[in-house]
Amino acid sequence: GLFPLSDSESKGSNLTITVVGASGDLAKKKIFPALFALFYEDWLPENFLVFGFARTKMTNEELRNMISKTLTCRIDKRENCEDKMDQFLKRCFYHSGQYNSEEHFLELDSKLREKEGGKLSNRLFYLSIPPNIFVDVVRCASLKASSKDGWTRVIVEKPFGRDSESSSELTKCLKQYLTEDQIFRIDHYLGKELVENLSVLRFSNLVFEPLWSRNYIRNVQLIFSEDFGTEGRGGYFDNYGIIRDIMQNHLLQILALFAMETPVSLAAEDIRNEKVKVLRSMRPLQLENVVVGQYKGHSKGGKSYPGYTDDPTVPKGSLTPTFAAAALFIDNARWDGVPFLMKAGKALHTKRAEIRVQFRHVPGNLYKRNFGTDLDKATNELVLRVQPDEAIYLKINNKVPGLGMRLDRSDLNLLFRARYPREIPDAYERLLLDAIEGERRLFIRSDELDAAWALFTPLLKEIENKRIAPELYPYGSRGPVGAHYLAARHNVRWGDLGNEDS
Amino acid sequence: GLFPLSDSESKGSNLTITVVGASGDLAKKKIFPALFALFYEDWLPENFLVFGFARTKMTNEELRNMISKTLTCRIDKRENCEDKMDQFLKRCFYHSGQYNSEEHFLELDSKLREKEGGKLSNRLFYLSIPPNIFVDVVRCASLKASSKDGWTRVIVEKPFGRDSESSSELTKCLKQYLTEDQIFRIDHYLGKELVENLSVLRFSNLVFEPLWSRNYIRNVQLIFSEDFGTEGRGGYFDNYGIIRDIMQNHLLQILALFAMETPVSLAAEDIRNEKVKVLRSMRPLQLENVVVGQYKGHSKGGKSYPGYTDDPTVPKGSLTPTFAAAALFIDNARWDGVPFLMKAGKALHTKRAEIRVQFRHVPGNLYKRNFGTDLDKATNELVLRVQPDEAIYLKINNKVPGLGMRLDRSDLNLLFRARYPREIPDAYERLLLDAIEGERRLFIRSDELDAAWALFTPLLKEIENKRIAPELYPYGSRGPVGAHYLAARHNVRWGDLGNEDS
Amino acid sequence: GLFPLSDSESKGSNLTITVVGASGDLAKKKIFPALFALFYEDWLPENFLVFGFARTKMTNEELRNMISKTLTCRIDKRENCEDKMDQFLKRCFYHSGQYNSEEHFLELDSKLREKEGGKLSNRLFYLSIPPNIFVDVVRCASLKASSKDGWTRVIVEKPFGRDSESSSELTKCLKQYLTEDQIFRIDHYLGKELVENLSVLRFSNLVFEPLWSRNYIRNVQLIFSEDFGTEGRGGYFDNYGIIRDIMQNHLLQILALFAMETPVSLAAEDIRNEKVKVLRSMRPLQLENVVVGQYKGHSKGGKSYPGYTDDPTVPKGSLTPTFAAAALFIDNARWDGVPFLMKAGKALHTKRAEIRVQFRHVPGNLYKRNFGTDLDKATNELVLRVQPDEAIYLKINNKVPGLGMRLDRSDLNLLFRARYPREIPDAYERLLLDAIEGERRLFIRSDELDAAWALFTPLLKEIENKRIAPELYPYGSRGPVGAHYLAARHNVRWGDLGNEDS
Amino acid sequence: GLFPLSDSESKGSNLTITVVGASGDLAKKKIFPALFALFYEDWLPENFLVFGFARTKMTNEELRNMISKTLTCRIDKRENCEDKMDQFLKRCFYHSGQYNSEEHFLELDSKLREKEGGKLSNRLFYLSIPPNIFVDVVRCASLKASSKDGWTRVIVEKPFGRDSESSSELTKCLKQYLTEDQIFRIDHYLGKELVENLSVLRFSNLVFEPLWSRNYIRNVQLIFSEDFGTEGRGGYFDNYGIIRDIMQNHLLQILALFAMETPVSLAAEDIRNEKVKVLRSMRPLQLENVVVGQYKGHSKGGKSYPGYTDDPTVPKGSLTPTFAAAALFIDNARWDGVPFLMKAGKALHTKRAEIRVQFRHVPGNLYKRNFGTDLDKATNELVLRVQPDEAIYLKINNKVPGLGMRLDRSDLNLLFRARYPREIPDAYERLLLDAIEGERRLFIRSDELDAAWALFTPLLKEIENKRIAPELYPYGSRGPVGAHYLAARHNVRWGDLGNEDS
Repeated sequence: GLFPLSDSESKGSNLTITVVGASGDLAKKKIFPALFALFYEDWLPENFLVFGFARTKMTNEELRNMISKTLTCRIDKRENCEDKMDQFLKRCFYHSGQYNSEEHFLELDSKLREKEGGKLSNRLFYLSIPPNIFVDVVRCASLKASSKDGWTRVIVEKPFGRDSESSSELTKCLKQYLTEDQIFRIDHYLGKELVENLSVLRFSNLVFEPLWSRNYIRNVQLIFSEDFGTEGRGGYFDNYGIIRDIMQNHLLQILALFAMETPVSLAAEDIRNEKVKVLRSMRPLQLENVVVGQYKGHSKGGKSYPGYTDDPTVPKGSLTPTFAAAALFIDNARWDGVPFLMKAGKALHTKRAEIRVQFRHVPGNLYKRNFGTDLDKATNELVLRVQPDEAIYLKINNKVPGLGMRLDRSDLNLLFRARYPREIPDAYERLLLDAIEGERRLFIRSDELDAAWALFTPLLKEIENKRIAPELYPYGSRGPVGAHYLAARHNVRWGDLGNEDS
Repeated sequence: GLFPLSDSESKGSNLTITVVGASGDLAKKKIFPALFALFYEDWLPENFLVFGFARTKMTNEELRNMISKTLTCRIDKRENCEDKMDQFLKRCFYHSGQYNSEEHFLELDSKLREKEGGKLSNRLFYLSIPPNIFVDVVRCASLKASSKDGWTRVIVEKPFGRDSESSSELTKCLKQYLTEDQIFRIDHYLGKELVENLSVLRFSNLVFEPLWSRNYIRNVQLIFSEDFGTEGRGGYFDNYGIIRDIMQNHLLQILALFAMETPVSLAAEDIRNEKVKVLRSMRPLQLENVVVGQYKGHSKGGKSYPGYTDDPTVPKGSLTPTFAAAALFIDNARWDGVPFLMKAGKALHTKRAEIRVQFRHVPGNLYKRNFGTDLDKATNELVLRVQPDEAIYLKINNKVPGLGMRLDRSDLNLLFRARYPREIPDAYERLLLDAIEGERRLFIRSDELDAAWALFTPLLKEIENKRIAPELYPYGSRGPVGAHYLAARHNVRWGDLGNEDS
Repeated sequence: GLFPLSDSESKGSNLTITVVGASGDLAKKKIFPALFALFYEDWLPENFLVFGFARTKMTNEELRNMISKTLTCRIDKRENCEDKMDQFLKRCFYHSGQYNSEEHFLELDSKLREKEGGKLSNRLFYLSIPPNIFVDVVRCASLKASSKDGWTRVIVEKPFGRDSESSSELTKCLKQYLTEDQIFRIDHYLGKELVENLSVLRFSNLVFEPLWSRNYIRNVQLIFSEDFGTEGRGGYFDNYGIIRDIMQNHLLQILALFAMETPVSLAAEDIRNEKVKVLRSMRPLQLENVVVGQYKGHSKGGKSYPGYTDDPTVPKGSLTPTFAAAALFIDNARWDGVPFLMKAGKALHTKRAEIRVQFRHVPGNLYKRNFGTDLDKATNELVLRVQPDEAIYLKINNKVPGLGMRLDRSDLNLLFRARYPREIPDAYERLLLDAIEGERRLFIRSDELDAAWALFTPLLKEIENKRIAPELYPYGSRGPVGAHYLAARHNVRWGDLGNEDS
Repeated sequence: GLFPLSDSESKGSNLTITVVGASGDLAKKKIFPALFALFYEDWLPENFLVFGFARTKMTNEELRNMISKTLTCRIDKRENCEDKMDQFLKRCFYHSGQYNSEEHFLELDSKLREKEGGKLSNRLFYLSIPPNIFVDVVRCASLKASSKDGWTRVIVEKPFGRDSESSSELTKCLKQYLTEDQIFRIDHYLGKELVENLSVLRFSNLVFEPLWSRNYIRNVQLIFSEDFGTEGRGGYFDNYGIIRDIMQNHLLQILALFAMETPVSLAAEDIRNEKVKVLRSMRPLQLENVVVGQYKGHSKGGKSYPGYTDDPTVPKGSLTPTFAAAALFIDNARWDGVPFLMKAGKALHTKRAEIRVQFRHVPGNLYKRNFGTDLDKATNELVLRVQPDEAIYLKINNKVPGLGMRLDRSDLNLLFRARYPREIPDAYERLLLDAIEGERRLFIRSDELDAAWALFTPLLKEIENKRIAPELYPYGSRGPVGAHYLAARHNVRWGDLGNEDS
């Protein structure tokens, strides 16, 4: 994914992108707009087509109409945005069919072939559909609509199973029809700008690597919070819960990238090898290192917010966690003894996703007098904020300019929005482009997925078998206090709950 | 100097500050304004008086008039600045006398005693006079104008001799009349805000110390340049030359602070012990590691600039260096093999004083392809700019936001002027305040001075005995090219001559 | 291979070991004795049988007679050694056949099945045959003599091709009949006690790991020397030369084990993954970093030793190197800039195989005066001697006991023969046992082999295409002086040629 | 003390060594024999004389007779030992006098001058006398018997006061008559061969320094035990107790040498500067980090051993500790958080003085399975045994040679008695020689002594003021169990009580 395709490459072949589940929300909000953005920025090959596939009956025009409502031009609008939209929409087509009908996919294949006009064709299927029909679609698409002379790739979205068993069952099924090379398991957090930059910062600068270990890092926190609840869409969520929905994939993937050893090269397989290694070095989660919570109704400022189980789409008495905090450990030479704390929750007071790296205290006591009793308050902290706005900053101590010796704690911004004022592309753009270009770095390999489930499955089973009751917390609050006790047990203080401006 | 004096301390005693050489330039431009600034900011004790002493005949009013022209109010002018000036000037007095006359100092003593009104008195003498009369003044002041019940301290300005012998002779003479405790050898570069902050950054943050050694630092550069020549005031300079004028004191002092080991405490003696240690670990300079230069006349844009020897105050045919570059080495465990390059010059293209720390390249070749052939160009660099505007920034590599993988080099600002918009006090303010408060951290102890001269004396003698001819460079240029060859021999590239915005 | 087989495991199944090429030298000298030693020490399962297979016609008795001459009892002879030999020989059988005859292998299969008596059978084939018939034997054995219900494994000996192309061709052929899991490429140097201990020392002691990098290690030397020439058996050797015969496999394998990153576990695949990584981080050898030599005739003490080309089995005018020295580099974070020097030769003055790790000098100059001018002479050196007698020692500086301060350099023995007086098993014993137990740690995986050839193939081709003439050196000498110049260019001094007792 | 005196140095001057307190035990057992050994080995200058001074009336012959009984020849007896003894005794003289009589010292001076025969004379006084007469002797010797043209030095033995106050009083008194340069405070533990070697090992080998910090060292133990009690000589001891007698000097001095930063040179002042720094970085001992004990009577094997208070020279009901254990902390960058445990006792089961350095566990869990549950048992340990026999060894893990993978823990001897079979000189020899040669490295400077007392004085006062009762332990036992609880509280296991052969 390093460079736009060369002319000769793009001229010689077709690319068709089939969005299966084209009428769904994700397709409308993310996939079609991302495709348009890539087109707009000239990243797509010359001969590309977009097909929508779904059960809904629709004409090409109706699809185009539907899509057009969600396309937007970059903030730095060029004059020709409208033209570009038109050009893009002309390349969009629709085919309706049943997801499990090989016949309907054969019809799709005919249409694709017709449009491809005999040139070498590469086909990408984006499966924006519920998990229960994954395998059907893969079967039909693979058997009836694969490219004959180019490549065929399939992007699948989470959930990838509910536990080790269901996940390997799914993988096994996919592998009946696809090779590992063809499967692109997407985790859109890995497409975030900051996640890409993390490796660059760490491996291309001499000044970070020496600090990246147990000798200097005291703990690492991976924090995800949403400021809204299920809001009437609890059906899917209740079946999975926050641990499966956020921790086992998004947060764990970011942790693996953060903590992995230096790969032998930047090639996808080398990076994924290192990610698997770090996952395999982790201890499976244990119940005593986990706190689960669920939000309850709350009234504030005259407005009342419903609890999780108040949501009519959620089963009465559900014990599904909407919040979880966990301490994880990596038993390798680099990270032995460093707690990695994860925290994820819905209906909290803020919306945020970030990594916080808290460094150890400065050994010795040179500035003890200046810092007062709690040396730990004065430690350096590196914050990598993935969203809402991407940022990296390092908290350091410095002298306040002027006479006398007063120390202060400043944020050292590593990434200035000011320096790079261009709009940052959406994660889906990057990932779609990578899939098109066969760059697998940011997609999850089967053995990674296995290793990830191996860490979480025993815990998930124990929680469900023992019917562990979640700790209730008010909608809009900072989550259950149990998370503080968990952190304290590992000698950690949550970095996001310190003070106002943290 | 950590805290303003307590009330009880300031109420109970007098402080008199006698500026010997009160009619000189330094006194007018720096010392009186600094005293006023301290007064303005309430750092001085309640009962303080300022005395001018010089040969010129002048009344108190004339002195006040002279001083008042150079006093300025802080940028963030408070309303009462004029009032404050008046109050300050009322505390200023003048006494004229010969510098070697014990009698005249006895007269001064009477005046001081009269003003002190019988309270405990502390007396600070600031010797703003040529070196040849240092000892006379110290003798007279010490014998005839010392405080009887409080402390007596003497601030002396460079030059502290011309070489090891003359310097120890001077120290020996001073010590006839003063104890080590009473002597405050000032090096105003040590009073710069940034120099103070350097130790704070290094010792109060975990993230810097691990990098501070030969394992990570490839070379350190101490650079001083002025964009003007002697301009008719070459008499003093020609007798000393740039090596004595800038390198052996200012740059070497900053180097010692930069490179010293962690002191056992922040107390003055502990810091000075470490500075002496690092100076003693250095190899005396050798001629082959030094380049000397002298500026010659130059015409640019219709304007012509005179060469050094064109200055009528400079002896014809003078070989005195106006530029020097040198490679120094510290033979201890931390710095073994790391070249410390110094460069100082007059009549160069820019005005600047800074420390540049160039880090080693990232080992391994992960990003080689992205950086092109010269990995060394992509190394991190820490720049500590002492003047004109104080700043600290770190050059790091990061990914340019957006699709594709392009790397860029950004400056990571550690000190935002934006964050601390207050005016930074002049170095003389800090140093005067420290001398008043008995804080010796930033003053040079006798053994430090000896160690510094021990490094430079053999070189200076060799240059003078062999009548080494300086390499000529045009006024306003980047200095002699010999400096590049010297750097190259030690595998260094000057950081200040790289590109426009470095 | 951690523990002897449990009773239940050994009772329930048969193991047959078929030595293909049973009448050859290696079989007689190494394989049968190693099998006996394993039997003698009770490491083999209860029901095991040994089959010899070769073209020679022989009865079982004749085979037993042949074998019996090379079996030896452990030095610490137990009383029952003779009994044990008899028991072992009774389990040995012979079948003669053509190596490319599927029919003859089918006959072998019948005999095996007869002896196995219907129990679960595991079959190990040891291919002690020339490379040109590898594939034939593998085909026949695999198709006709595989176990039906247990495992079938094949041990193959070097050479594994002559370059990247022939090696991948061979691998491709083997994989037609065998899976990666079934192929055991043996490198008997990896079976040496010391090689096993190397990882234990490094990874189970805190005190070694911190030193294991470019920060402390200045260079690593891998040295192999034989004190005899081809001695009438130059036919095979001349076709390969010393680089293929020793460097590309034995020395490179040891280097990979020495230099690899910490594996995620001690499992074979994890260790082999790390070995492949380090091989992939190495730069392909370049001709300017290589010296080749060939021994010439030499007379000493009235005895005359023939040159390489004097050997009648060597083609006249052969340019095949009998000596080579090379500098290799690993471009990763741990080893960037550290030269790894290899040296291998025949007909040298001594017989030895060892790794020498030379550490950097102590930074700073505290003991400079005590060491004299050449600090580098006083650096620490770690020597891991693989043969003739296995030993590990560290050269350290210490004070000579007594008054005054004289420093001395002592050897610090890490492995005492005194402490472990038992006979150390032959490398073949360990490797055979590992193959039987399915422990693949010490066998070379296909991708490792590919990576190893990728490093050496361009060099080998260049030497052969340009007909590079080897530097001649006398039989029994220390090799060509070119090796010293090569070392010097990389700032290295060969550790084995320093002084008498090194 | 690096080299024997040059001829010119020794020819030109006299050296007289006056042993004040010549009839005492220490003089007979240690000082005269050490002087003879130095003479025997040719370390003394040509013109040296030994004077005994004491109150006892004695002739020169009587002194010689007394001395001759304790002189011994080196084990590797040269033939001429008897001759040497005769030569030595001829140079021994005696003068009797009162310790506080200036007149008697004037008489001594006459005798010395007579013997010196007008040549330049250097005079060393060894004060082998009780502390209460230190100052008298120093006064008399200094005023009446100082050398007129050479140097005069005074060796004093502990105790140097009982606490901060009495110690500075003593120093103040000494300084009335002597400069710092003339005072040689002896701590004979610092003269031990091993203590000298400690710095050599640490600073002249690259392989030790990286390990010498909190990152790798988990704790340090300083252990002193005697296997006998006061045995009728409790009078002196009871006044001081084990903490003053052993910990505050011997163990603390060794700790300082062990833990100090790298000195800027090996010169005495540089080393002592670093020792003072490390002492100043230590926290004063606190009662909760100390355990005190006292031995009680015990019968074993039919023999009965008396308790401390059974000793008739000990006051009834004495609470004086005969055992103490303490945890100390050094609050600097290198040692922050590493407990330094001291333990010293009389009447224990063994006689030993040693430093034990316990390293941290290997991070990660590669060999966890091989080590069983308690990883900490498998950590490396460095033992520096000062007495009875000097030795340095490192406990490391290695593979047991042979098939299978069994790990073992071996001792790696760094100092082989086998390698250096010569008799190791007594500590007094080294120290006397150093004093003669003006080498102050191993003597304690006044500020060191102050810093040492500052650590212990508050604790000693608290123990005495609160009349803390010691924990009783049987004569010949391993000491009070409280020491185990103290260690456990700091996560330490005493290394000397592990198993039989530790």
